[in-house]
Amino acid sequence: MTHSSKLILGPDPEDTRLSAAVTGVNELGKEVDLRIVTERPLTLFLNRQEIVTMMTIGDHPDLLAIGYLINQNMLNPDDPINAIDYDDELGVVVVRTDTETKFETKMKRKVRTSGCAQGTVFGDVIDAFDDIKLDSNATLKTSWLGTLTKQINTTPSLYLEAGAIHGCVLCSEDQPLVYMEDVGRHNAVDKIAGWMAVNKSDPADKIFYTTGRLTSEMVIKTVMMGIPILISRSGFTAWGVELARQSGLTLIGRARGKRFTVLSGRDRIEFDADMSTAPRDQKDAL
Amino acid sequence: MTHSSKLILGPDPEDTRLSAAVTGVNELGKEVDLRIVTERPLTLFLNRQEIVTMMTIGDHPDLLAIGYLINQNMLNPDDPINAIDYDDELGVVVVRTDTETKFETKMKRKVRTSGCAQGTVFGDVIDAFDDIKLDSNATLKTSWLGTLTKQINTTPSLYLEAGAIHGCVLCSEDQPLVYMEDVGRHNAVDKIAGWMAVNKSDPADKIFYTTGRLTSEMVIKTVMMGIPILISRSGFTAWGVELARQSGLTLIGRARGKRFTVLSGRDRIEFDADMSTAPRDQKDAL
Repeated sequence: MTHSSKLILGPDPEDTRLSAAVTGVNELGKEVDLRIVTERPLTLFLNRQEIVTMMTIGDHPDLLAIGYLINQNMLNPDDPINAIDYDDELGVVVVRTDTETKFETKMKRKVRTSGCAQGTVFGDVIDAFDDIKLDSNATLKTSWLGTLTKQINTTPSLYLEAGAIHGCVLCSEDQPLVYMEDVGRHNAVDKIAGWMAVNKSDPADKIFYTTGRLTSEMVIKTVMMGIPILISRSGFTAWGVELARQSGLTLIGRARGKRFTVLSGRDRIEFDADMSTAPRDQKDAL
Repeated sequence: MTHSSKLILGPDPEDTRLSAAVTGVNELGKEVDLRIVTERPLTLFLNRQEIVTMMTIGDHPDLLAIGYLINQNMLNPDDPINAIDYDDELGVVVVRTDTETKFETKMKRKVRTSGCAQGTVFGDVIDAFDDIKLDSNATLKTSWLGTLTKQINTTPSLYLEAGAIHGCVLCSEDQPLVYMEDVGRHNAVDKIAGWMAVNKSDPADKIFYTTGRLTSEMVIKTVMMGIPILISRSGFTAWGVELARQSGLTLIGRARGKRFTVLSGRDRIEFDADMSTAPRDQKDAL
């Protein structure tokens, strides 16, 4: 079996806008040089409606904008977008649709009464989530996990270059397809959601890998994207597990090499890996 | 030198509302039992104004509410609060003030024009941040770091019990005073800010420790709280470093045992530790 990389889009650690060189001092009082990741505010508008200010490394603002709106149920993947205007200097991205979106109409009404849309948006996302039952034909072979995590961990990345950054990877079987990084872990997810919408990628046979914890928000976003399998090297929260079980998501945490814990959707897992040599590491990462 | 614990308020891993027992399957297909942390939505109101829905483990909703409002510059530590109403079942906390806050007056005006307050709040926080210059008399002795991190790491906590949770600790010299945990790392900071406001704790001689990365938001919150020294075992972002240097915050990252990297405010550091035996670990945690 050959493992030529199938990576379509990945991190660009060479992009000098995404990291900075700084000089500090170590515990001995000696000067040290290091590279650290960029972080800057990006304010998202949907037409004339201001939505949110995100802290991001700043790559792929168009995909981040689209993915955020879709994952927050503010935009349907089918809604015709006629322009995405990005102003690097102002830190503003505007997604423009032909006609006013359902979300905008609703918000106009909402804002007049209480002045804030946060709770409404949250409630709407939960309502939309409740309607989704994930495809049950997808499979994960445990023999894929070692290859997959090795490929992810050895792909040149800002994580390897500078650290202190989260990564999310859209995968097919044991191969990473799209690998996004961001200082905000939810931004990394949203950039992948944006890529999937733009490229009309079928979620039903995909696997989603994240370095972040398996919280409610991570589970909700994965399910909103229609992906049936979510893997993390980190741990779980109780509500994340509850939501995964409700929607039929396969939820795998504490994945280190061949080791893992599955707390939902084990029916999709085919236990075909040779486990005779795997060491045990139970400590959660964050 | 004795090290009897000076911890005033710490994690309560025995509280059954904060974690749940779940059964899963490991990589061998065998059943495993584990404890995982709770996560639930809490919607915050300032009087009649809905502010935000946070994902939290749910302890100290009153301190979280007050600390969030103060750190977002929506409430002054001196504003008289006449009630905090918390409804556990609805997941709602309401902070009530005697008179309408400046923030509410401003938001009413803002909401009428654009319908969203996010960008305004962000701009206001940055403006408030720009006015703060931290006290320069505070000191950090490098010999404190080993004791401090050992005390934090051995305090009974949800992290030790269940993992996948962030911790923040308000410290004095080499002793933890208030240790808060939460699934959202900013919630842990905000709960400490709330505790400090309620207990009128002087920030000028304190040290703040976090398990999370040193991002802009972490730096802004620490500076808004008036604490001159911020330590993390994780890495930095470029904007976090820039903001720390601007406000004169001592910013120490990658702190593991006696090892660390300081990228801002080294003048406060007294290099008195014996470094002859410390091992080197350069890898960033998240």
